[in-house]
Amino acid sequence: MVHQKPDEATADETSISTQPPSYNLSQAPPVYKVGYPPQKNLTTEFTNTLRETFFHDNPLKQYKDQSGSTKLIMGLQFLFPVFDWGRTYNLSKFKGDLIAGLTIASLCIPQDIGYSKLANLEPQYGLYSSFVPPLIYAAMGSSRDIAIGPVAVVSLLIGSLLQNEVDHEKNKEEYLRLAFTATFFAGITQAALGFLRLGFLIEFLSHAAIVGFMGGAAITIALQQLKYVLGIRKFTKETDIVSVMKSVWGSVHHGWNWQTVVIGFAFLAFLLLAKYIGKRNKKYFWVPAIAPITSVILSTLFVYLFRADKHGVQIVNNIKKGINPSSAHKIYFTGSFVAKGFKIGVVCGMIGLTEAVAIGRTFAAVKGYQLDGNKEMVALGTMNIVGSMTSCYIATGSFSRSAVNFMAGCRTPVSNVVMSMVVLLTLLVITPLFKYTPNAILGSIIISAVIGLVDYEAAILIWKVDKMDFIACMGAFFGVVFKSVEIGLLIAVSVSFAKILLQVTRPRTALLGNLPGTTIYRNTDQYPDARHVPGVVIVRVDSAIYFSNSNYIRERILRWLTDEEEKVKTEGLSKINFLIVEMSPVIDIDTSGIHALEDLYKNLQKRGIQLLLSNPGSIVIEKLQSSKLTEHIGSNHIFLTVADAVRFSTSKSMQEP
Amino acid sequence: MVHQKPDEATADETSISTQPPSYNLSQAPPVYKVGYPPQKNLTTEFTNTLRETFFHDNPLKQYKDQSGSTKLIMGLQFLFPVFDWGRTYNLSKFKGDLIAGLTIASLCIPQDIGYSKLANLEPQYGLYSSFVPPLIYAAMGSSRDIAIGPVAVVSLLIGSLLQNEVDHEKNKEEYLRLAFTATFFAGITQAALGFLRLGFLIEFLSHAAIVGFMGGAAITIALQQLKYVLGIRKFTKETDIVSVMKSVWGSVHHGWNWQTVVIGFAFLAFLLLAKYIGKRNKKYFWVPAIAPITSVILSTLFVYLFRADKHGVQIVNNIKKGINPSSAHKIYFTGSFVAKGFKIGVVCGMIGLTEAVAIGRTFAAVKGYQLDGNKEMVALGTMNIVGSMTSCYIATGSFSRSAVNFMAGCRTPVSNVVMSMVVLLTLLVITPLFKYTPNAILGSIIISAVIGLVDYEAAILIWKVDKMDFIACMGAFFGVVFKSVEIGLLIAVSVSFAKILLQVTRPRTALLGNLPGTTIYRNTDQYPDARHVPGVVIVRVDSAIYFSNSNYIRERILRWLTDEEEKVKTEGLSKINFLIVEMSPVIDIDTSGIHALEDLYKNLQKRGIQLLLSNPGSIVIEKLQSSKLTEHIGSNHIFLTVADAVRFSTSKSMQEP
Repeated sequence: MVHQKPDEATADETSISTQPPSYNLSQAPPVYKVGYPPQKNLTTEFTNTLRETFFHDNPLKQYKDQSGSTKLIMGLQFLFPVFDWGRTYNLSKFKGDLIAGLTIASLCIPQDIGYSKLANLEPQYGLYSSFVPPLIYAAMGSSRDIAIGPVAVVSLLIGSLLQNEVDHEKNKEEYLRLAFTATFFAGITQAALGFLRLGFLIEFLSHAAIVGFMGGAAITIALQQLKYVLGIRKFTKETDIVSVMKSVWGSVHHGWNWQTVVIGFAFLAFLLLAKYIGKRNKKYFWVPAIAPITSVILSTLFVYLFRADKHGVQIVNNIKKGINPSSAHKIYFTGSFVAKGFKIGVVCGMIGLTEAVAIGRTFAAVKGYQLDGNKEMVALGTMNIVGSMTSCYIATGSFSRSAVNFMAGCRTPVSNVVMSMVVLLTLLVITPLFKYTPNAILGSIIISAVIGLVDYEAAILIWKVDKMDFIACMGAFFGVVFKSVEIGLLIAVSVSFAKILLQVTRPRTALLGNLPGTTIYRNTDQYPDARHVPGVVIVRVDSAIYFSNSNYIRERILRWLTDEEEKVKTEGLSKINFLIVEMSPVIDIDTSGIHALEDLYKNLQKRGIQLLLSNPGSIVIEKLQSSKLTEHIGSNHIFLTVADAVRFSTSKSMQEP
Repeated sequence: MVHQKPDEATADETSISTQPPSYNLSQAPPVYKVGYPPQKNLTTEFTNTLRETFFHDNPLKQYKDQSGSTKLIMGLQFLFPVFDWGRTYNLSKFKGDLIAGLTIASLCIPQDIGYSKLANLEPQYGLYSSFVPPLIYAAMGSSRDIAIGPVAVVSLLIGSLLQNEVDHEKNKEEYLRLAFTATFFAGITQAALGFLRLGFLIEFLSHAAIVGFMGGAAITIALQQLKYVLGIRKFTKETDIVSVMKSVWGSVHHGWNWQTVVIGFAFLAFLLLAKYIGKRNKKYFWVPAIAPITSVILSTLFVYLFRADKHGVQIVNNIKKGINPSSAHKIYFTGSFVAKGFKIGVVCGMIGLTEAVAIGRTFAAVKGYQLDGNKEMVALGTMNIVGSMTSCYIATGSFSRSAVNFMAGCRTPVSNVVMSMVVLLTLLVITPLFKYTPNAILGSIIISAVIGLVDYEAAILIWKVDKMDFIACMGAFFGVVFKSVEIGLLIAVSVSFAKILLQVTRPRTALLGNLPGTTIYRNTDQYPDARHVPGVVIVRVDSAIYFSNSNYIRERILRWLTDEEEKVKTEGLSKINFLIVEMSPVIDIDTSGIHALEDLYKNLQKRGIQLLLSNPGSIVIEKLQSSKLTEHIGSNHIFLTVADAVRFSTSKSMQEP
């Protein structure tokens, strides 16, 4: 039955190599056996694994073949990229950075004041955190577009974590000291992760979980602002939507201040309109960028002229004037607060990193440059360590301000320096002017800033692509909204891990069939044309075979076989004599996996079925050989392709009566 | 350059299908496009995932098309397999079970007394645990070969965990009550895992980690026995090798009892010799099986006749006579001990499960029957719940006794019933006879029993197969030996998880080349013959693309490209215009993965390189399509095979000047 027939569908691709093939039709075709890779010694293997895990970006490559002094300079440039881009810095670049810097400064000042309220800190700490950290980042960071400073989600997170430990109203000083301690440890965590090249740890938070968590946090933050926008004096300390709504509606008759409501909603409408204009036409990106500071100026003037503060409109009051005082002596290095600060620092540091690295990567991809995640982490960590000693709380990259920075045409981190200088000026000169700024305006600014974090488009895409991911996303979202930030974060992390674990315990397997007229074997579910080969069951295992899935895979393969045997019985087809396991996707196997294959082999032998393997990869074949399983199964039962294995089985079947 | 040439190497496999191919040489060859699977709705998708995760063995399949009463009977048989095998039980089977049962009984009685000492309990509790649990298991369990009772490692573990909470000498009653509480919760854990079909959770402990943990625990247990074998009265409570060795050598001059040493080592030598004989010739399996009880009888007689107990030889003294008293009222259901008991119970229950399921699977594979892990867990759990109410501590399957049971020719769980009856007789009649049994003999019996757990052959195999696994194995081993069982267990679990996480963060990628004369593309590392195709880089991604690895994969693919571009430059070859990503092993992709592919596509476009995809699986192509990435990349740039993609790229290159 096996007659020779040229396979046109694939035949005409054989001569694509530049050299003419060394055989022709009259010669025997080349027959390839499964390749055994050269034996590697332990050190090489170990080094390779280490390198791929920690140094996969090969950071030392460029230092090869360089003289000592060049290496030193390159090392400096590596640690302080400012020495790299600084050498080609020019006026035209500065023009871009100046405009971008001024724009994000006008955006960040009102945001900083508002965000420090989320962290239960006084307004000046928000401004401090927009002065020192951006300077450090400008020297050490390698993202050209990120805007550094306090951000909403991290402020909310650190605020609620700190409040769990110390009450910010009763123990103000302790609260502040714990905030600096947490910031210090957040910096240490970030720098350590980068330095130890463990940056990949932040990738264990799935995209879907982050989208849900961020969206939920944004809603929570916006709800918190109702306090200011509605002018409510007695407000719940809980952050879940139920408590907040109770607080809001409970005070509807006597707690709301109509003057505040008018100011708040008028400017919120203005800000949202500005945002809409900026979104509709990219040319007007500056409209939403300067709208907040404009609102602040207008509303402050308004309150000052009409003395609206006498009518119950809450105002910012005094912001402490002057630059950051030192706070190194305030960090706890002994006592029970060290552990608490450490714990909070680790959590906030990781979330800060996740946000900053995501922003950095997004804009790097748009502008087409590479970003070294680990290096970024060292920069962000250093900036927070220095920050914790200069009265700053955790700063990181802000989504909204980075986008504005990018659209305003920033070219280098100098835009952060410009922003930092404006904040410095504000601290030195302008803070008294904020005295009459109504809190409602800050609330409106924060609401209009965070609603961008509710990324419903991403959620829709997640829904379309992966329903399980969507459940994770919604879990994190509702966790934050209905319970608390911590619970939401916990859900996000657990769901991410559960997904990883599920993925390695229940890998997919598929039944393969032959695409008629070719030597191609494909999943019969995906290709309904694919035909079963009589007497043979072909199963593809779509995963590495590890301890976590080896038993499942063995049982699943046997189930495929049982199903096929039943079908054979009912349809009266020829008996199944061969089971081919297509191992192309099996990239690795461990001792449990080898035991599973051995058990499978024994089980099949009892049933009189021959096990054939197709295309094991280099690592797999090496391990099969060193465990002597190849001898067990027989080297002549291991093939390069499914087609080879099928040919073997059909020729064998023909030899038997 | 693309001329048609029949590909003999693969051509002769095309006609293996039973129906003649519907085309011949003069016709155009069939061209297959990448298949799009039929759209599944949400419910189907969700049900499928749930089924594969929890009900992959399809337990309800046999109930289909059955009448109501048959279903009831089948349900009973499912829960109590005794109704299934009991119907065909006959005398010949009973003969096998009787001999096996008597053999394991003779083995278990001295072991039980020794193991209860490891758990810091009085000897009768060991015997109790060999009476009730085997009876329950015989009715509910489906393994035919497992021997139920207390085991060394779990006894050691529960002993040291309980001792951490309550001192067994000072608070004897509390200790005992906590032991029953832990046993109760261990049973609940086991039954719940089985009932909720979460049995796969125990598969997160890697084989290598278990081998190391078991070996370490065996060494620790053997070291503890030195106390009895050397007759030392003052002995450390620590279990690490350093403390134990200090205790042993510190008391060498005045603490050792030479009579005990003589008895202990003489019988240890006898037991090891018996073991050796049994190992050399499987026919003499009964020699090591009855050696322990023989030793007990001989040594007891010896001590009784020479009154060696007057010369400092420690003896068992009284074992409480009579069957298990009820202990249901002793279990803590309120108070602070509930949480402690729960914690200990969960840990010991999981370890007990791991051991029992591993034993059950091993013998099931040898005898060729299937074992339902989840059903086993329900059986083991029920037996421990009942046990906790009848004065038993945690029982599970014993490695050494199960092996003897198997070799002695057991046929069904009836051998456990036989053993249980012998233990009952012992409790009712013989216990006073153990009064003069020297502790040294029990020590020797335990040493000879546990050394089999030091599976150095498995460790050697692990070393050969996977060096990283070996490190995990040694980590667990040294953790137990040099620190404590808990630390060793912690290392085993952490290392197992770290391995899973590493596997999903740093998947492998490979550069493919063409095997000359075929349309097969393989890893150039594994197949040095494989030739690069000029102007094309072919990269295979060996893993699902998930959030945990999407950034790494994108960067790694770009690094392959950069490496190849450098090679092209130095060797003066033609410029690279196409990057083919072979996606056969990419079994799934999530939103992060899609973003990574999109970033890759944009990056390549900037460099003037076209991205081609080859053979995406059904789930992947579905998601690429729903995220509109197929439109981005272009459907005509997605191919069924690498060969098709290469043909496309070469024909494109030829069209351009």
